[in-house]
Amino acid sequence: MIIIKDCSYIITQNTKREIIKDKDVLIDGNRIIEIGKNLDKSGEVIDGKNRAILPGFINTHTHLAMTLFRGYADDMQLQAWLQDRIWPVEAKLNREYCYTGTLLGMLEFIKSGTTTFHDMYFFGDAVKEASKNSGIRTVFSQGVLDFPTCEFKSPEEAFGLFKKLVRHRSELFIPTIGTHAPYTCSRETLLKAKDLAKEHDSRIHTHVSETRKEVNDSLNQHKKRPVEYLDDIGFLGPEILVAHAGWVTKGEVRILGETRTKVSHCPISNMKLAVGAVIPLPEMFEHDVVVSLGTDSAASNNNLDMLEEMKVAALLQKAHLWDPTILPAQRALDMATIDGARALGMEGEIGSIEVGKKADLILLDLAKPHMVPWHNVVSNIVYSASGQDVVTTIVNGEVLMEDGTVKTLDEKDVLYNSQEIARELVDES
Amino acid sequence: MIIIKDCSYIITQNTKREIIKDKDVLIDGNRIIEIGKNLDKSGEVIDGKNRAILPGFINTHTHLAMTLFRGYADDMQLQAWLQDRIWPVEAKLNREYCYTGTLLGMLEFIKSGTTTFHDMYFFGDAVKEASKNSGIRTVFSQGVLDFPTCEFKSPEEAFGLFKKLVRHRSELFIPTIGTHAPYTCSRETLLKAKDLAKEHDSRIHTHVSETRKEVNDSLNQHKKRPVEYLDDIGFLGPEILVAHAGWVTKGEVRILGETRTKVSHCPISNMKLAVGAVIPLPEMFEHDVVVSLGTDSAASNNNLDMLEEMKVAALLQKAHLWDPTILPAQRALDMATIDGARALGMEGEIGSIEVGKKADLILLDLAKPHMVPWHNVVSNIVYSASGQDVVTTIVNGEVLMEDGTVKTLDEKDVLYNSQEIARELVDES
Repeated sequence: MIIIKDCSYIITQNTKREIIKDKDVLIDGNRIIEIGKNLDKSGEVIDGKNRAILPGFINTHTHLAMTLFRGYADDMQLQAWLQDRIWPVEAKLNREYCYTGTLLGMLEFIKSGTTTFHDMYFFGDAVKEASKNSGIRTVFSQGVLDFPTCEFKSPEEAFGLFKKLVRHRSELFIPTIGTHAPYTCSRETLLKAKDLAKEHDSRIHTHVSETRKEVNDSLNQHKKRPVEYLDDIGFLGPEILVAHAGWVTKGEVRILGETRTKVSHCPISNMKLAVGAVIPLPEMFEHDVVVSLGTDSAASNNNLDMLEEMKVAALLQKAHLWDPTILPAQRALDMATIDGARALGMEGEIGSIEVGKKADLILLDLAKPHMVPWHNVVSNIVYSASGQDVVTTIVNGEVLMEDGTVKTLDEKDVLYNSQEIARELVDES
Repeated sequence: MIIIKDCSYIITQNTKREIIKDKDVLIDGNRIIEIGKNLDKSGEVIDGKNRAILPGFINTHTHLAMTLFRGYADDMQLQAWLQDRIWPVEAKLNREYCYTGTLLGMLEFIKSGTTTFHDMYFFGDAVKEASKNSGIRTVFSQGVLDFPTCEFKSPEEAFGLFKKLVRHRSELFIPTIGTHAPYTCSRETLLKAKDLAKEHDSRIHTHVSETRKEVNDSLNQHKKRPVEYLDDIGFLGPEILVAHAGWVTKGEVRILGETRTKVSHCPISNMKLAVGAVIPLPEMFEHDVVVSLGTDSAASNNNLDMLEEMKVAALLQKAHLWDPTILPAQRALDMATIDGARALGMEGEIGSIEVGKKADLILLDLAKPHMVPWHNVVSNIVYSASGQDVVTTIVNGEVLMEDGTVKTLDEKDVLYNSQEIARELVDES
C-alpha cells in the first residue's frame, strides 16, 4: 500500500471537478482505494504537503521515438522539413533507434507527469520493451501506410505486425492500429483497419486535416473534405481518434459529434509548423466532441510537456477569438486528463482521482516562486507551472519517480545512449 | 575572480552570434575579462560541463509586485478583470505589499534566468530595497498617471518621487519614468516627463496600443492613432520604450523606426487577455525597430518565464502568418537578450557574453531528457527549455544562484511572506 499524506490539494477531476484540501490518498496494488483524513495504514508514505496531486496527464498524439530528432530541423517550411530532414532520417530507423528514442521520451514523460500516451510509430515490439522498462502506460498504434517504410513493405505486412502485437496486450501496453492518414491509406486499407480493430476490440489512430493542402487534395480527389470522405466510407466512429482536425468546417464538426469520433488537438506542433492550429474548439464542445491534447513529436514541438500544451491551447483560442473567457484553465486541464482518457476509451480506468480507478497520479510542487500565492491552484497549474514542477509520478500503482528521482530508468544512461544514437542516425543520413 | 570552466556551449550573442564550445569564461569583479581554453586562475570555480552559458534574460515590461495577484483573476473579460479584480486590490497597495511582491518576483527571476528587468509600478523605494537584497539588475519606471493612485495624488507628486529616486541611481538600480499610457497621461504630463528624462539623462516607459478600444478612443479624441498622436506631440524618440504596440499600422511602424522608439512585445499576456497579440514583427524588423520581450505582470501571464515567452512569441508569429520560417529560434533569443539591452539603452554593458561587458550570465542544464539530443542547442533552448532549466544565475559578477541554490534570498521566507500578504490583501478588498 502507498499512502500519500496531507495533500494540500487533491485535484480530483471527478464529474463535479472537486478539489479536496488537506486529505490523504490511499493506493492498494494498482488502484486508488480511499481518499480521506488521517488514513492510518501501513505502507510506503509519500508526503503531499505543499503539493497538488492530480491524475497523470494523457498525451493522445505523439511519435515518441522522434525525440531523437529534437532540434534537428526547425524554422523550416513543412515540405522542406519533411523531405530534406525528417523522411531521410526516418528511413534509417530500426528497432534499436526506436527503442532508444522511445525510452528517452518515456523518461521525459515520467519527469513531466505524463502517465499514459498514445503513440503512432514503428517497431511496436521495441516500444513494448521500453514501456515495460519505464513503467509508462502505453497505447501504441502500429503505423500503417500504403507505401513501404523502414519497418514494412505493405499495409498487409503492417496489419500482420498489429496482429502479432495485440496478442501481448496487457495492463500497460495496449496495441491499436495507426492508419497514418486518409491520403496515405486507401479506402480499402482504412476499412480493413476498421474491421481488424473490431475483431480485436481495439481502436484506430489517424491524422486528419492537419494542413490546408490535404483538404484541397481531398476535395480534388474525392469531391469531399477529409472528414466528409471518412464518414462517407463508413470509417468514423467512437473507436476512432483523429489527430489535428485543424481545417474542419462546422458540418464536419457535426459529423465528428454524431459519429462520436475523438479528437487530439496539438496546438504547439501545429503553430510551429504553421499548418493551421486554430481548431474550432467552441463548436466541437457544442457538438459534444471529445477533444484531448497531444504534444505531437519532439521534432515539431520540441518538448513533450503537457502543462505547456494546456497553456498554449488556452492562449491560442483566447487570442484567436478575441475572448479571454474561452477555454478556461479548468477546461484545459480536463483536456489533458479526463478527456484524454475518454479519447482513448479508458475513462472508466484512468483520467481522474476516484476510488476504484487505477493509480495513475502525479504530485506537483506548489512551494516554488512561480506557484505562489495560492489564490487559484488550477490557474497556477495551467498558466504558471511547467513539467518540471512534477516531483512524483505514479503509474498503475508503481512509483516511477519520487521527489525528482526516477526509479525505473537510469537517467544518465538514457541520455548518453540517446545522444550517441541520435548523432549516429544523423551522420548516416 | 570567478571562472566558469569547460562550458559545453557559450551562446555569446555577440554581433556574429558566435557559439563557442568547450571553453572557459573568466569574471573579475563585475565584468567578463576573458573567454578561452584552460584559463588557469585562482578564484571560485563553476563547472560549465553539460551546460550552456548565456547572457541573462532581459525582461523589458512587467509590474513586478503584481506577483501577489497571480491566479487571482483569470479567464475574464478585460474590463471585468480590471474593474472587479485588479483595481480594487491595487488600491490597497502600500510599501510593504510592493516590497514583498517585488521580492517574490525577483526570486522567480533568479530561478528562471532573468538578470535585468524593466518595471513599471509604485513604491520605488521598496523596489530599490528588494533589488539591493536580491541582487537583480533593476530598471524601475516610476508610475505616472493623471489620476490618484495608491502612491500619489497627482502627476506632479509622481514626478517628485522620480526626482527623489533618481538621486539613488546605481549600477543595479536605475530609475526611469513610467508614464502609464497616452490615455491616462495628458499631453502636458507626457511632455513634462520627456523634459524630466532629458534633464536626468533618463528614459521613459509607457503602454501604447494594447487594445483596439484604445486605438478607437485615440481616433475619436485626437483624430490620430496612438503612435501618430505621440509622434505629433514630439514625445517619441530613442529614449522611449512602448510596451505592446499590438494595434499599429505600417505607417506607425515607420514612425517607430524613424524616431528609434523601442518596443516591448508581451505575447503571452496579450493572448491571455485576448487584447490583440500579433504585433507586425516582420514590418518592425524591416524598419529596424528594436523589439524586445516582456512577460508583463504575473496577473496576466501568469509566470515570469522568459524562455516560455520566447517560444510563444515564435509560435504566434508562425501560426498567424502561416510561415514556419518567421521568427526563428536565434532571433527569438536575440529579443530576450541583446535586443532587450538595446531597448533599455544598455547594449554597451549587458545582453551578450563579450570581454568587457558586465557579468550578467546564466547557466542552463543541458543534461535533461527534454534537452537531448544536442543537434541544435539554440533550438533546444528556445523550443524545449523552461525557466527551470536555469541552474546558475550571475548578476554584475555576483552569484545569485548556484546549482539551484539561491544565495541572496531565503526562499522559504519569501514564499511564506508572499502567501500571507497576498491572502491579507485579497481578504481586505
